[in-house]
Amino acid sequence: MTPTIAALSQVPPFARGLVKDIRVRWALEELGLPYEEFLVDGTSKDGADYRAWQPFGQVPAYRDGTVTLFESGAIVLYIAQRDTTGVLAPRDANGNARVATWILAALNSVEPFVESIVVARLVFGKEPWGKDYEARATDMLKGRLAALATWLGDKAYLEDRFTAGDLMMASVLRNVDDGLLDAYPALAAYRARCIARPAFARALEGQLATFARADAA
Amino acid sequence: MTPTIAALSQVPPFARGLVKDIRVRWALEELGLPYEEFLVDGTSKDGADYRAWQPFGQVPAYRDGTVTLFESGAIVLYIAQRDTTGVLAPRDANGNARVATWILAALNSVEPFVESIVVARLVFGKEPWGKDYEARATDMLKGRLAALATWLGDKAYLEDRFTAGDLMMASVLRNVDDGLLDAYPALAAYRARCIARPAFARALEGQLATFARADAA
Repeated sequence: MTPTIAALSQVPPFARGLVKDIRVRWALEELGLPYEEFLVDGTSKDGADYRAWQPFGQVPAYRDGTVTLFESGAIVLYIAQRDTTGVLAPRDANGNARVATWILAALNSVEPFVESIVVARLVFGKEPWGKDYEARATDMLKGRLAALATWLGDKAYLEDRFTAGDLMMASVLRNVDDGLLDAYPALAAYRARCIARPAFARALEGQLATFARADAA
Repeated sequence: MTPTIAALSQVPPFARGLVKDIRVRWALEELGLPYEEFLVDGTSKDGADYRAWQPFGQVPAYRDGTVTLFESGAIVLYIAQRDTTGVLAPRDANGNARVATWILAALNSVEPFVESIVVARLVFGKEPWGKDYEARATDMLKGRLAALATWLGDKAYLEDRFTAGDLMMASVLRNVDDGLLDAYPALAAYRARCIARPAFARALEGQLATFARADAA
């Protein structure tokens, strides 16, 4: 059964291309798998029907006739672990399990620090202490970026080949300001290398096309 | 090969019982599997040897002769997915995949909001705006707790039985103040129900015993 991805029908311009359903689109595009969209808006995302699918009213959510899931990390991991072609994950036990390690590292050890900056600006930006908080949160993020850059060294990917772990880490790094990431040239090059993949371009095009249709409607 | 868990050799009293290796101990205790400890301290956790195992200098990390992993979520998921007894995860495709969904939800949609409060106190506590920030972060956490309580309703567990997803969600909720969690009686009862499991008590005992040995040395 064709997978369905829950996505937002419209977002403000600054968020276009960054909404988290792009991660699932990217994974499916890497495998050449078609998908359908289920669009929610600011009202329906908090309705009981959608909350029964996604308890926090977020996107993405996913269903394919076999499973009904939410959380971008869990969905991408599910797609990667079922991929028998090995495009998104090695088939050996260690290589396969390390995909989960890097997806979790991206989402629990890096993304919360990236999100702190987003929150500093969008939520606390008008507080008198908003700038102080953002500076402190930026210092904490730098610690994580430095550790990641040390791990990466001169490798092209987090492991010895591209995996769904890189897909997720690069997706998280897309929310880091260019000016900050450029202080870690290995990370800036890594992010650029990952998002240069044709499957990412198709995923981005897919998300943007949905917003363009909403603009036109 | 007996699994090895990387853990901290010593922490301040307030953190004892809360260090994240307890999640992996708990998973192994649910299965009755023995494990060994690899202890790191404030210095060795940042050495090149340990960073080659755990790039961020955190605990836990894990190895068992087949895989070498880090991130508590990835390790617990690995243990759960390989558990053929079904104690930590249902064997059907949807039930199994939803364990990953809940582990990711705990670690990406709930824990960052819990950690914000910890950071507000430990890192920003002496800033003139520390209390304001903590109040705002608490409001954001309440939104997540309310959504989770709505999902849980009158169910005993997140799904129709205990899984490693509950293990992880309850572990995250252990860092929420009792006073705050008590405003969501279903969640307070859920947390109590999960940590009443004998395997959790053994995991806690295991972590505390390590610190007691360090005290005595």
